[in-house]
Amino acid sequence: MTVSNKITILRTVQQVRQWRAQSFLNGQTVGFVPTMGALHAGHCSLVSQSLTENDKTIVSIFVNPSQFAPHEDLEAYPRTLDRDLEILELQFREKHVDAVFVPKISEMYPNGIVLDVSKQKGAFVTVHGSSEQLEGVTRPQFFRGVATVVTKLLNIVQPTRIYFGQKDAQQCVVIKNLVRDLIIDTEVRVMPTMRESNGLAMSSRNEYLSQEMKDRSSVIYKALKAGSAFYNENVAKEDKVSASELISTIKKVIEKEKAFEIEYIAVSHPDSLEDLEYVELGTGAVVSCAVKVPKENSTEKARLIDNIILD
Amino acid sequence: MTVSNKITILRTVQQVRQWRAQSFLNGQTVGFVPTMGALHAGHCSLVSQSLTENDKTIVSIFVNPSQFAPHEDLEAYPRTLDRDLEILELQFREKHVDAVFVPKISEMYPNGIVLDVSKQKGAFVTVHGSSEQLEGVTRPQFFRGVATVVTKLLNIVQPTRIYFGQKDAQQCVVIKNLVRDLIIDTEVRVMPTMRESNGLAMSSRNEYLSQEMKDRSSVIYKALKAGSAFYNENVAKEDKVSASELISTIKKVIEKEKAFEIEYIAVSHPDSLEDLEYVELGTGAVVSCAVKVPKENSTEKARLIDNIILD
Repeated sequence: MTVSNKITILRTVQQVRQWRAQSFLNGQTVGFVPTMGALHAGHCSLVSQSLTENDKTIVSIFVNPSQFAPHEDLEAYPRTLDRDLEILELQFREKHVDAVFVPKISEMYPNGIVLDVSKQKGAFVTVHGSSEQLEGVTRPQFFRGVATVVTKLLNIVQPTRIYFGQKDAQQCVVIKNLVRDLIIDTEVRVMPTMRESNGLAMSSRNEYLSQEMKDRSSVIYKALKAGSAFYNENVAKEDKVSASELISTIKKVIEKEKAFEIEYIAVSHPDSLEDLEYVELGTGAVVSCAVKVPKENSTEKARLIDNIILD
Repeated sequence: MTVSNKITILRTVQQVRQWRAQSFLNGQTVGFVPTMGALHAGHCSLVSQSLTENDKTIVSIFVNPSQFAPHEDLEAYPRTLDRDLEILELQFREKHVDAVFVPKISEMYPNGIVLDVSKQKGAFVTVHGSSEQLEGVTRPQFFRGVATVVTKLLNIVQPTRIYFGQKDAQQCVVIKNLVRDLIIDTEVRVMPTMRESNGLAMSSRNEYLSQEMKDRSSVIYKALKAGSAFYNENVAKEDKVSASELISTIKKVIEKEKAFEIEYIAVSHPDSLEDLEYVELGTGAVVSCAVKVPKENSTEKARLIDNIILD
């Protein structure tokens, strides 16, 4: 593995604090891209944006245990640190990433962490009102884990700006609420979803899929686009569009793939994520879905999520 | 009301951030004493300690709604801002308090706050393992409210050190866990309980009591001291002392006051707050109690807490 001398690898909270103190002293802005590794073009677009907007950029790579339920894919989640560092090294040459924070679990959870929520001890952050629906239905501890680890990371890095991808639409809402409510001094920047040329939203979990299945999974985005077209066509006539008609338009397209299993298709208020009965011009909506598609060489399914914004 | 020009009154998060930024630039340490007002000598000892240990000292005065249950005394809680500012002005003359943060509720809870936990929306912090016992039994939402508001205040003030009184022993443990787990860059300083000359622990809620009742309430500390004497006498013989014998020693003393109602007397591990069966030399214990005593001109009772450390 070739890692440039340009990128500083930080492994402890103490090291990040020392690195950050220097930027504070120099009056430099710091952009922060938190990731779970398995970097792809989606992450790189966040890094690229951070490099444009800040004097310094730091990326974290940490597979956060507390956002996985005991039955979920914490063990299987792709860990590709060497490749990740190479990507950060090779992709950004003109203005480079300054530091990568790669903490051990004990650094992020000094009190330890177990996946069974009922046995967890210590401080956790919950964001009520935007964590329970959509992804929260099948993953009731997911956003508690995300909110907790992002709070920790924000307290460690103290970035001027923190970057997330629109692909994780609900996560973006939860984090915005978190930063507002806990009065954290940072700006949350949400960047557009990056897609494969066939339209499939980029995701680390796409690594679970064969190329053929990736192509077939592009039906998810095509379905959302069909929903968007339906909305644009009808909102011009009536100023509001029925959410249930929108959902059935999308559903019909995804159902063409018989092996796919739709977990939800939802039409939600863009800020509160409350279910909408109608989408109105001005307010708009986030239309999101979770679909399970067959994994490569496995009888299991991978769970893919995607969304589009209507305005 | 005479308020000196020396103390800056800050009312918004933005104002605190600007004030704090100056200390960061100047490399000055900042001590922070969070209070709910109704200042007494207990608070003043924290302020005094902060003035000794830091370049700048900021005090906050905010009666935090989220730590009160709907049936508790949020409305009745003493609010004496003018007198509080006068106390801070008059007590500390050689080295003075630099700023007082007096936020509105909307500043601390930008998303609003209702007391009914099941209806609360937005980000909250819970500290599992140390919030449920002792005070948490009768006040199940108390430490969630405390942890949430302290997290907000820490994010706003970003102090070098934050000061609490040992009187609120469980609060001190919860805050220490919070700061450790959420990886907040501050030092938690715990100062000894301040007492009236009769031994009664100072508390803003003592204002609910007549002078006669304050004198009679000093039995609580006398009882804890009797427990301490029992421990010291017996641990010399056997290296460990039965918690239940310790508790009954304390109980007998408090029970002399027939109108008092003991809510709990507990012998807990000093770090985890887990119930101890025996107190051992070296580990020690925190011995705490809550006692309800008659309020002045009322059929209601005031709830007083106190504790001592065995080591």
